[in-house]
Amino acid sequence: MKNKEMTTKIRIKQSSYAAVMGILIYACAPAVQEKESAQAEPEYLTSWNDVDSRQAIIDFVEATTTEGSPDYIEPEDRIATFDNDGTLWSEQPFYFQLQFGIDRAKELSDEHPEWASDEVMSAATEGDLEKLLSFGTEGILKVIMLTHGGLTEEEFDAAVMNWVNTARHPKTNLRYNEMVYQPMLEVLDYLRAHGYKTYIVSGGGIDFMRPWTQAVYGIPEEQVVGSSLKATFEERDGKFVVVKSPEMNFVDDKAGKPVAIHQHIGKRPVMAFGNSDGDLEMMQYSSSRAGKSLQVYVHHTDAEREWSYDRDSHIGALDKGWDYALENGWVIVDMAKDWKKVYPSTN
Amino acid sequence: MKNKEMTTKIRIKQSSYAAVMGILIYACAPAVQEKESAQAEPEYLTSWNDVDSRQAIIDFVEATTTEGSPDYIEPEDRIATFDNDGTLWSEQPFYFQLQFGIDRAKELSDEHPEWASDEVMSAATEGDLEKLLSFGTEGILKVIMLTHGGLTEEEFDAAVMNWVNTARHPKTNLRYNEMVYQPMLEVLDYLRAHGYKTYIVSGGGIDFMRPWTQAVYGIPEEQVVGSSLKATFEERDGKFVVVKSPEMNFVDDKAGKPVAIHQHIGKRPVMAFGNSDGDLEMMQYSSSRAGKSLQVYVHHTDAEREWSYDRDSHIGALDKGWDYALENGWVIVDMAKDWKKVYPSTN
Repeated sequence: MKNKEMTTKIRIKQSSYAAVMGILIYACAPAVQEKESAQAEPEYLTSWNDVDSRQAIIDFVEATTTEGSPDYIEPEDRIATFDNDGTLWSEQPFYFQLQFGIDRAKELSDEHPEWASDEVMSAATEGDLEKLLSFGTEGILKVIMLTHGGLTEEEFDAAVMNWVNTARHPKTNLRYNEMVYQPMLEVLDYLRAHGYKTYIVSGGGIDFMRPWTQAVYGIPEEQVVGSSLKATFEERDGKFVVVKSPEMNFVDDKAGKPVAIHQHIGKRPVMAFGNSDGDLEMMQYSSSRAGKSLQVYVHHTDAEREWSYDRDSHIGALDKGWDYALENGWVIVDMAKDWKKVYPSTN
Repeated sequence: MKNKEMTTKIRIKQSSYAAVMGILIYACAPAVQEKESAQAEPEYLTSWNDVDSRQAIIDFVEATTTEGSPDYIEPEDRIATFDNDGTLWSEQPFYFQLQFGIDRAKELSDEHPEWASDEVMSAATEGDLEKLLSFGTEGILKVIMLTHGGLTEEEFDAAVMNWVNTARHPKTNLRYNEMVYQPMLEVLDYLRAHGYKTYIVSGGGIDFMRPWTQAVYGIPEEQVVGSSLKATFEERDGKFVVVKSPEMNFVDDKAGKPVAIHQHIGKRPVMAFGNSDGDLEMMQYSSSRAGKSLQVYVHHTDAEREWSYDRDSHIGALDKGWDYALENGWVIVDMAKDWKKVYPSTN
């Protein structure tokens, strides 16, 4: 996987370079900037076909970042929020974090003989997915809480990175964080190059994402918002540490997303990207901001290169949100038609 | 107050200028950068006397931001957290936010006849501070919850700004956000000019600070962490809004501070500034990071220009934290001796 690591590094370097150049051009010669950016634009979003969704994103960014435009938005208000599962990376056959939880449950089962008589935890340690999913969200949360709790933040970071660097997806045989969408990485880069601050706002665990979002998405820890466990402050072996408790603090899904954005960011997103009904409220919250805004749904239509699902899916259903998007003229990305490629390393 | 507004604007402009110049110099010619910053250094921290505390801050910043230094810290890890009450602005004779709560309680009392028979709320509407404080933290939180709840985030922003722009402190006759410490504004600027990301981590209400921290401190909404009420997502008059509930969500004080930093920022502060026992855990958390860190206590020793208090104060007591700081060699700023001036507009 050296190849992939190199690709990622190069991508990040290019993005920093673009940002620095953007600042240089802006600061040194505003007149040059316009010309340069008009010429440079085509290098963005290169894994997208020449489709309406791509054009809608470009038109919106140009309208909100070109000085003198009636829809110009000050840099400090350029907030773009992205769901993670199904919007930036895949989420089938079920949320990747649950696979991490199952793998940890197997590892930890010797230390927890009591799990053998617990029907949720024994389904996890046996890797019996169908049974585990039959317990619904509560079952998923239980596995997450019991396999994530008790660790310091540093220990948990290390456990996540160890898993991310070794585990592979059963269908693609890719590492999980190689199953990110190349066209969406390009959207992130494109927005940042135009002064947008990019945030993840995910139902997934905030601490499960943070250890790798900078390297993979160019999004630093402090711009990741997600579900969380409660935590305590303790002194252990003469060091002060924050320890994750086996108890939910906040579920960052549906109406929780705008509330979490309010608490973490303190201003409404100008752009909001999602893929499921769980993102609808975040996108509605963005749509009600004073001034221009853009809402984009990624629609999973690509059974060949990824997965195809929407209204009735057990994971990431897009039903109520789809109707709402159609009624309100939101942008809908058709993965099969709009994207030249899906993952960075594949077609 | 035009004068003050101008001063603030100029200060912010200078800070942006310094940041842009920093990037320009860095990007164009690294060799020039070293020379420039060595020459430019004396313009920072000009309201500080030539004292050990000032030198300790400068030495630390140079050690952690000079490339090739054994203690060099990557820009993305340069996190500095600041308590607000008593560290960035005054907090006597009691937290300014409580005055806002009392002023709102008076305004709203006609709509809440039930407050007349409530001993806490009637103490607030009558402005009977001594009685109000006799109910301790619970009394304070009750006033905050009942006067802040029910508003959308935009309505609450407007209420805060209306108060900030009109209310005046009984002792100084200054507006409350003019009672910020000039030497600390200079620390914020100095750190940002060296690539540090500055955060507020306050026991005060996150939504009470956010509307004015950018203009006054140069700290954007998303870098303010504080206590919060629960909130709900609602549709009101065809708009989607977040509404503050009259119920505490999180108290960001003592051991709550490192937990809030973990949740909001996701990495340990390299530098932590506080003034009371309420900041001790945040500073301990910073001190246990792997690698160099700096903890700074502001000690209120200036009865003439500000207030003088420490171990036994009813607000902002510095007792256990003071002992800990002395034992561990933390930096202690003596306001009377170390600062040439206290507020931007006064001596």
